[in-house]
Amino acid sequence: MSTAGQVIKCRAAVAWEAGKPLSIEEVEVAPPQKEEVRLKILFTSLCHTDVYFWEAKGQHPLFPRIYGHEAGGIVESVGEGVTDLQPGDHVLPVFTGECKECRHCKSEESNMCDLLRINTDRGTMLSDGKSRFSKDGKPIYHFLGTSTFSEYTVCHVGSVAKINPAAPLEKVCVLSCGICTGFGATVNVAKPKKGSSVAIFGLGAVGLAAAEGARVSGAARIIGVDLNSNRFEEAKKFGVNEFVNPKDHNKPVQEVIAEMTDGGVDRSVECTGSVQAMISAFECVHDGWGIAVLVGVPNKDDAFKTHPVNFLNERTLKGTFYGNYKPRSDLPGVVEMYMNKELEVDKFITHSVPFAEINKAFDLMLSGQSIRCIIRMENH
Amino acid sequence: MSTAGQVIKCRAAVAWEAGKPLSIEEVEVAPPQKEEVRLKILFTSLCHTDVYFWEAKGQHPLFPRIYGHEAGGIVESVGEGVTDLQPGDHVLPVFTGECKECRHCKSEESNMCDLLRINTDRGTMLSDGKSRFSKDGKPIYHFLGTSTFSEYTVCHVGSVAKINPAAPLEKVCVLSCGICTGFGATVNVAKPKKGSSVAIFGLGAVGLAAAEGARVSGAARIIGVDLNSNRFEEAKKFGVNEFVNPKDHNKPVQEVIAEMTDGGVDRSVECTGSVQAMISAFECVHDGWGIAVLVGVPNKDDAFKTHPVNFLNERTLKGTFYGNYKPRSDLPGVVEMYMNKELEVDKFITHSVPFAEINKAFDLMLSGQSIRCIIRMENH
Repeated sequence: MSTAGQVIKCRAAVAWEAGKPLSIEEVEVAPPQKEEVRLKILFTSLCHTDVYFWEAKGQHPLFPRIYGHEAGGIVESVGEGVTDLQPGDHVLPVFTGECKECRHCKSEESNMCDLLRINTDRGTMLSDGKSRFSKDGKPIYHFLGTSTFSEYTVCHVGSVAKINPAAPLEKVCVLSCGICTGFGATVNVAKPKKGSSVAIFGLGAVGLAAAEGARVSGAARIIGVDLNSNRFEEAKKFGVNEFVNPKDHNKPVQEVIAEMTDGGVDRSVECTGSVQAMISAFECVHDGWGIAVLVGVPNKDDAFKTHPVNFLNERTLKGTFYGNYKPRSDLPGVVEMYMNKELEVDKFITHSVPFAEINKAFDLMLSGQSIRCIIRMENH
Repeated sequence: MSTAGQVIKCRAAVAWEAGKPLSIEEVEVAPPQKEEVRLKILFTSLCHTDVYFWEAKGQHPLFPRIYGHEAGGIVESVGEGVTDLQPGDHVLPVFTGECKECRHCKSEESNMCDLLRINTDRGTMLSDGKSRFSKDGKPIYHFLGTSTFSEYTVCHVGSVAKINPAAPLEKVCVLSCGICTGFGATVNVAKPKKGSSVAIFGLGAVGLAAAEGARVSGAARIIGVDLNSNRFEEAKKFGVNEFVNPKDHNKPVQEVIAEMTDGGVDRSVECTGSVQAMISAFECVHDGWGIAVLVGVPNKDDAFKTHPVNFLNERTLKGTFYGNYKPRSDLPGVVEMYMNKELEVDKFITHSVPFAEINKAFDLMLSGQSIRCIIRMENH
């Protein structure tokens, strides 16, 4: 029996308060409205951004809320005006959208859609300012337009990428956010040449994905930089073949790297969000041709500071958002890279838990044990 | 009678002391040594960099010295090992060289030759650390490897571009430095698209050349930014069609430009060297695709400072040196652009004086009257 047009009752992991364990509850999910789709989520994974907003230390708290934004699912039903998707399509919901009509979507260079650009403060749907989630008649807020910690969720059609139905959702769900962010930063923005040198600052999931991008690009030297030396061993699987821990040196890490590389690396990618690492990542690239790419999100009051001669000596500094991928246009192609075995995804997935144990995924991330932990919605 | 292998006696404008008028003297110019060429200079022009080092306020003073680095001339004789040039070739000497063998010269992306990169402190030839100029047996220092304020000069072959002999040297001499620096910053680095918007900070010779690059690229809006509103009228000839004087506004000029352009310009080029202008030039480009290019040379202790989120919103900041042109490889092509009437050069030349009146060229520049003043070595 079709559930289209009906309210669906299902399980969701609700965050009632900042930093408190999520609670699996039965919630009601309203049907999708105009330009919206309702998805059955099969697999979701946990990203640092979920944890950051769940902790609610740095922003206005919005509770109760359903987190989750890395996921794979299947379209259950579509709202009025939706022509690109239909029930049964395999999809990845994405935390930032692509309306295909604004200046950004029409520009080849930008993926920062005016309509559907990431908005961490919004907890409701764009069209009517209301939530599609409720429990006992009271609304529960959305997160990033995705809220994938629920068996069903409602998204704007512009935030949903249709992918090859042959792709295993329990793997490619991690392409929704972190892996594409790092991988795209390297392959779409830094664009290292075959045989070149690349420094990766921060060896978390995003940094490892940036390293994977350097490996896929054929970089000869991939230098990992992290304050935790234990990460080097794991990072080798992602192509990192040299390691620098800034704590092991009594001079700035950019000088250490310049000495290792006869003047600097060809490319660097900053994945920590520390402004000091950003400065080091910029200053460690070679004059004449070096390109540094910023990925990590800084604190509100940080200032990037360098001597302008570092630019005049023909260095480039660029930032990127979601690896410069346009979610609907480009994500299907990234999934194909995985299918063609160009991009390796399985090695990012270190853990897996059933939905009922979602709080374990938080523990694994907070203790630094996991790169990605898959949360299986159907316990299979 | 050939002068090859002989010492040549000729006139040169010698700077004996910082900031004092140049003195036309008879000097001796030794024959070119290995990998060097001796040039007969026909036309030279004055650039701010000559004035800056002649004033010697910001660097170690080196006197007596023969300034000059924008010029056109003819090869008089060549030293041992020189095969690329021969007597009679029409050439432009350049303040920075291209050895064609170092990593930078072999990179497609860099023009910052390891061997012949600009060196403002060096006053002698590379091969033997000696000067080729003397008067009464006492050496006179070179400047930038060019010293074109002399009827004859000696350069490293790597600092001399051979050009089309049909090109009028009294015009194309200005391509030696400033015009290429600004023009190349736009066409080689900022690369504005047809119909786009470009902001140019500083409407001196380099900034006007950057505007000319935007005009040639088909930019629709070319916004000139200068603290001197009198410059707008002249700038119109170079394609500038809107003008902003930061003094006329009580908010940062980047905000003024963002309002004028619905969020920012597509490209900006900074040609003043003021670090505040650099910050404004970066912050006035549109998120998603904006590129800012730094050209102006900052003070030693300046710090470029901005919030890193300005980068993360997909803005790019790059610096350039000599418009990213490789002097020997690329300058002949720029001369051809002039010959084909794509690049207009004549409008940069506002004045002309005979060599004997070279100090007038300094007065014209210091009083802000000239864009470029040609100095005619042969009084014709």
